Amino acid sequence: MKLNDRGLLIVLSGPSGVGKGTVRKALFNQPNNNLTYSVSATTRKMRPGEVDGKDYYFISKEEFEDKINKGEFLEHAEFVGNYYGTPLDKVNEKLDEGQEVVLEIEVMGALQVKEKMPDCVMIFLVPPSKEDLYHRLKARGTEPEEIIQERIEKANREFKVAYKYDYIVVNDEVNNAADRIMAIIRAEHAKTSRSIHKYLELIGE
Amino acid sequence: MKLNDRGLLIVLSGPSGVGKGTVRKALFNQPNNNLTYSVSATTRKMRPGEVDGKDYYFISKEEFEDKINKGEFLEHAEFVGNYYGTPLDKVNEKLDEGQEVVLEIEVMGALQVKEKMPDCVMIFLVPPSKEDLYHRLKARGTEPEEIIQERIEKANREFKVAYKYDYIVVNDEVNNAADRIMAIIRAEHAKTSRSIHKYLELIGE
Repeated sequence: MKLNDRGLLIVLSGPSGVGKGTVRKALFNQPNNNLTYSVSATTRKMRPGEVDGKDYYFISKEEFEDKINKGEFLEHAEFVGNYYGTPLDKVNEKLDEGQEVVLEIEVMGALQVKEKMPDCVMIFLVPPSKEDLYHRLKARGTEPEEIIQERIEKANREFKVAYKYDYIVVNDEVNNAADRIMAIIRAEHAKTSRSIHKYLELIGE
Repeated sequence: MKLNDRGLLIVLSGPSGVGKGTVRKALFNQPNNNLTYSVSATTRKMRPGEVDGKDYYFISKEEFEDKINKGEFLEHAEFVGNYYGTPLDKVNEKLDEGQEVVLEIEVMGALQVKEKMPDCVMIFLVPPSKEDLYHRLKARGTEPEEIIQERIEKANREFKVAYKYDYIVVNDEVNNAADRIMAIIRAEHAKTSRSIHKYLELIGE
């Protein structure tokens, strides 16, 4: 019996190159999970094969800026001339249905989310060592040395914000990391701040 | 890779009759656990077959009161003329070795522990309903009705302190409750307050 029926907003973040995407995939493969994605809104043009409301919510620049002004995004960013953002109302709908919404997101966006929804669960994914991360960034492909250096410097800045998160999880092995995150989700549901209301109902107070 | 090497002090408490002892036993049967007990000190006489330092630390009343005055107990109580207490130094030794120390303890004692060691993990075990607990208290044996009534009133008072705990875990099924507690232990090790030091070492800060 769970004492918290509302889903959790899981913010999965960490320095560039740590393997957020891989861990997210492993997480969704865990048995008995109740995890879901949040569909982002964007102003970029729909591509062939994409479905509105499934891949993205495709909206106009005016509509997007209007929503920014009304505070209707959990976080948003601009990328090569287009806006991308996480609609607050869609996330809340899923949480109300009891689903855990997983946001895999860059460090800057994650901190925006925390401000907007302080009861989210902030998870900072880290490599087993700095060298491990550098190695991953270098192994990614055929980018010129200066791009790799830029990424390393970005990661070094991002390493420093760990203290703003609720949990630090080492991505030593992707399934270990996913296991730890599943344990965090179970524990968070049992946290007194989340479970006291239903508990008081249970004992008739 | 765990980012916190120190063990956790797990305080397992809850209203009388909720099944703390049964859940503790199930907990110690969980695979890959690193759990240990804390041996209490007492002033009562050693019974045949008991071993000093294993069943209890058997000490004199003077020694016990001296230790109380020096603040050397995590908690202590008097019961039918004898003292019982949890020696702080023994608990710290085990935590330093990386073992999780489980204290199964009454509500009053648990709150003493929290004051003495605020970074302990306070778990409040609750029944699926008030009626369920009443039923358990009544089913215990052949005690007279007034003793049962006293226990029910005690449980009703104890129900109200749940908000002082970190987690509320329902004892709907003993292995479910133990599973939830194992998840809490994993999550607590990943908590930023416990993992940030080793993390900073890891990235060389």
